[in-house]
Amino acid sequence: RPRFNMSDPWQECLDLCVEVTKKAGEMIREALQKDIAVMQKSSPVDLVTETDQRVEQLIISSIKEKFPAHSFIGEESVAAGAASVLTDDPTWIIDPIDGTTNFVHRFPFVSVSIGFTVKKEIEFGVVYSCIEDKMYTARKGKGAFCNGAPIKVSGQEDISRSLVLTEMNFDKDPARFRTMLANVESILTIPVHGIRSPGSAAVNMCLVACGSADAYYHMGIHCWDMAGGAAVVTEAGGVIMDISGGPFDLMSRRLIVASSRAVAERIAKQVAELRVGRDDTDG
Amino acid sequence: RPRFNMSDPWQECLDLCVEVTKKAGEMIREALQKDIAVMQKSSPVDLVTETDQRVEQLIISSIKEKFPAHSFIGEESVAAGAASVLTDDPTWIIDPIDGTTNFVHRFPFVSVSIGFTVKKEIEFGVVYSCIEDKMYTARKGKGAFCNGAPIKVSGQEDISRSLVLTEMNFDKDPARFRTMLANVESILTIPVHGIRSPGSAAVNMCLVACGSADAYYHMGIHCWDMAGGAAVVTEAGGVIMDISGGPFDLMSRRLIVASSRAVAERIAKQVAELRVGRDDTDG
Repeated sequence: RPRFNMSDPWQECLDLCVEVTKKAGEMIREALQKDIAVMQKSSPVDLVTETDQRVEQLIISSIKEKFPAHSFIGEESVAAGAASVLTDDPTWIIDPIDGTTNFVHRFPFVSVSIGFTVKKEIEFGVVYSCIEDKMYTARKGKGAFCNGAPIKVSGQEDISRSLVLTEMNFDKDPARFRTMLANVESILTIPVHGIRSPGSAAVNMCLVACGSADAYYHMGIHCWDMAGGAAVVTEAGGVIMDISGGPFDLMSRRLIVASSRAVAERIAKQVAELRVGRDDTDG
Repeated sequence: RPRFNMSDPWQECLDLCVEVTKKAGEMIREALQKDIAVMQKSSPVDLVTETDQRVEQLIISSIKEKFPAHSFIGEESVAAGAASVLTDDPTWIIDPIDGTTNFVHRFPFVSVSIGFTVKKEIEFGVVYSCIEDKMYTARKGKGAFCNGAPIKVSGQEDISRSLVLTEMNFDKDPARFRTMLANVESILTIPVHGIRSPGSAAVNMCLVACGSADAYYHMGIHCWDMAGGAAVVTEAGGVIMDISGGPFDLMSRRLIVASSRAVAERIAKQVAELRVGRDDTDG
């Protein structure tokens, strides 16, 4: 068996990614088991930070061992001062725990998300929803899978029959907070079937990918929240675009994914833009 | 083995309830498997109604066979014109599919919810989250369980560390819609850790019961959405009250459940009341 797959040079990386993501998910589940008492007491933030960092270190060190020349953008590394600029290098974009608030509360949507880019294009993505034990994988041009079974979007084209995902957070900037709330009102008024807020960007993208929701929009998230799920939803037949309706930009902190172009474009038309900066210039 | 348990005359009813609820959940799962194509096409509403009715008939006929003198309040029976008045009779309060929008979209929170009252007091409750395969049960004074393991609320007393559940729906009454949105804003501004919207009232109550969320409030739901979950969250050590902060009233269509009295009372103080009528007078 050849070590290097001529027809797909990145398959080996995807295989490693799945293996490492599974280990990371186990580490998260263990933390959830052990530290219930700690989390419900005074300082859950410390526990999250510690687990987040440990999981990211596990992932990066495991990958570096096999691919020492590759680049990394990880949530915790960036928090510690590393650059968050996408280059042409093979790059692993890592969110060790997507849904940290859910993690603190043991709310059942907590995921490990990894996307892999080459020349700034996403080649594959892996999202492991580790409490649900659902492993989502996608390789460019090869389809999307959940626990090995192919998945696809609902194909819904009618916004008024759509279930829409988004997240609502308090924002100290009053104008931004107001716009976020006005957008929720605007979507509900269409009206849609409903709005759901599961609390993990990567899981939200996978819920659209497997047809359990028809759209997800969000402003203010980061490249590590989006990279893994972007591959999954695209390969599941979904549409991904910028909140403006233009092309998706991984470093823009803005996202619409949907079951169809019609639904995505209607959301782009319906929501007002928030000023959220970029991952690669606004640190 | 005696047929009648002198020390607990309602245990036999609870045992039957669990058995019937499990069968109902299987019927729902089968419907979700078989009818994907149908649901994603033109008229998912018909499928929901049909499954809803079939499941309720299964539940009521199974219970009537053993307890012909008992009363019933079921969502579908009420929709078909039956009375929705709580009497002193032993009464089964049934929601055959809690989370019908989730059911249509195969969003993973769909439950069967049954509460049982005698002299208007809830004696036990059963909620089966049938996609997750989680069976929540509670008998008055005997604790709450998920798949047989005891559960309890988080005990959180600090609203600013709380994860809060509520649902956001479009409302044709502009004043009511506006108040619902203002309440979401008001809760976020406290600020809390976050707001989540899973889409099933009964599951929301069980998420609070097992400590995955710290509070849930809702106005406009029905007695069949609340009866099963009310037993579960109360027996898990949670607090249940009216949205005004007064005593919980099963027929009032208004609800706060929380991990502690402090959190429940803070939510009562924070949200404005909506005019939602009552189940027993406004039919």
